[in-house]
Amino acid sequence: MYTAKITMSSSYFLADTIKTYYEDHGDNRSYPLILIHPIGGNVLIWHHEISLLLKSGFRVIAYELRGHYRTNMGKVGAYTMQDLVNDLHQLLKHLNIKRCSIIGHSIGGIIASMYAAQFPDSVDAIVLINSSPRKFEEKDLEKHFKTREVAIRDGIEALAEYKLQTFDETRDLLKDKRHSDFFRDVFTKTSVEGFVAATIALYTVPENVVEKLQTSNCKVFAIVGSDDDVFTRLLKETKEEMPEMELKVLDGSDHWVIIEKPKEMYDILMNFLRKLQ
Amino acid sequence: MYTAKITMSSSYFLADTIKTYYEDHGDNRSYPLILIHPIGGNVLIWHHEISLLLKSGFRVIAYELRGHYRTNMGKVGAYTMQDLVNDLHQLLKHLNIKRCSIIGHSIGGIIASMYAAQFPDSVDAIVLINSSPRKFEEKDLEKHFKTREVAIRDGIEALAEYKLQTFDETRDLLKDKRHSDFFRDVFTKTSVEGFVAATIALYTVPENVVEKLQTSNCKVFAIVGSDDDVFTRLLKETKEEMPEMELKVLDGSDHWVIIEKPKEMYDILMNFLRKLQ
Repeated sequence: MYTAKITMSSSYFLADTIKTYYEDHGDNRSYPLILIHPIGGNVLIWHHEISLLLKSGFRVIAYELRGHYRTNMGKVGAYTMQDLVNDLHQLLKHLNIKRCSIIGHSIGGIIASMYAAQFPDSVDAIVLINSSPRKFEEKDLEKHFKTREVAIRDGIEALAEYKLQTFDETRDLLKDKRHSDFFRDVFTKTSVEGFVAATIALYTVPENVVEKLQTSNCKVFAIVGSDDDVFTRLLKETKEEMPEMELKVLDGSDHWVIIEKPKEMYDILMNFLRKLQ
Repeated sequence: MYTAKITMSSSYFLADTIKTYYEDHGDNRSYPLILIHPIGGNVLIWHHEISLLLKSGFRVIAYELRGHYRTNMGKVGAYTMQDLVNDLHQLLKHLNIKRCSIIGHSIGGIIASMYAAQFPDSVDAIVLINSSPRKFEEKDLEKHFKTREVAIRDGIEALAEYKLQTFDETRDLLKDKRHSDFFRDVFTKTSVEGFVAATIALYTVPENVVEKLQTSNCKVFAIVGSDDDVFTRLLKETKEEMPEMELKVLDGSDHWVIIEKPKEMYDILMNFLRKLQ
């Protein structure tokens, strides 16, 4: 299916005490796209995107955040968003990638935004999938008081079920058993510690990311499921501050668009990426 | 020195996976004061206050926050301010304390404020020592990017030295060897994990604490060292919103007033506590 020159290497990159798992797909002379998964995600969640983007001729690098599946937590069990940005910076330095575009889902898009704001000469474009560069409101994060409690008390499998049964954003996945099974399979590979730390890191999104993106040359694209209230609101606010951002709304979809609508997502993604040339 | 009926018990209280260390000094029929230490502190830091408040006839309960000296971190290495408030709630329930006043230094005062805002019928007064019920500004917390890095990379002893040599707030302690030795002795009993988690928890202070305190009957007193810029500013802003708060400024003192000026602090404290009757 792939041409012979396409190679894949999966490896660990060690920065301080964080051993970051990453996969490097395709020709390393091709243009690099970096994929960053959401909280409770990992490289597995991108399997459609990796295969489709590879066929379109990109080099695709996907890695796992602290405490998610094959990346460890390091010496301590708490981190800020800036720590996650530093981890990405170390990884790109290690891979000797000087310019790239970054595709991030949810927390992954926040990392992409902060990275592009901090290293404007290294990032041509960011694609935010159900994500935004704006600071959350306090109420947006309150649901995680309960998710953390369930995770700590009952474990990550119980949290996956709790999310599927309780949250609008994941309840849609139950309509298709393949979707809910896939969600369970990916989500339960997250460590409780990683989940807790990541949801608390959401409080540490800096205030000036949009402002910094405005003064950079980095293109900003965004995709949001119409039923994802929080990110629909945050992206609407972002669009007001940054009218040049291209925003696509995927009707009848919620937070987990990657799982629910891979084909539609890919079409929008390619439409964005074509504008980079 | 103490009368016979004064007893002290030190014990652990277990809530979920958190084993909270606490000391319960004095007659349990006396009015209870709860002491909450700052980040990098523990029960040792209150030794002057415990002895003086005991002689004044109070029951004095001091405990240690997650990851600080004799209290463990539990299953995960990250927590929010609300988790610390819940720990205090569990402890007071365990001790069957229905009404009390709370004295908190720095993060301890934030916990006191949030607790009083949430349980207005349980708290007669809070005393904030270099602390405030207001949310921090982003820049107030930026110094901890460096302190966390030092702690994780070089350990807690190195962080104690770094703080003593670098920070205005602790540099004053070097003027008196007894102060700096005492600071080192207390501070280095903190776990790296506890320090990191607590500094990140500072991002999670809710916005509406002052508002809730205004509508409660809880009296609010505050003491601040004149050289502590952050808390002087935050307390000035608090005073504007809540003019009934009594604020005392301790001239020529910084963040570690407990260590630097125990006598002056005690006089102000007793002056506050006399108003409770």
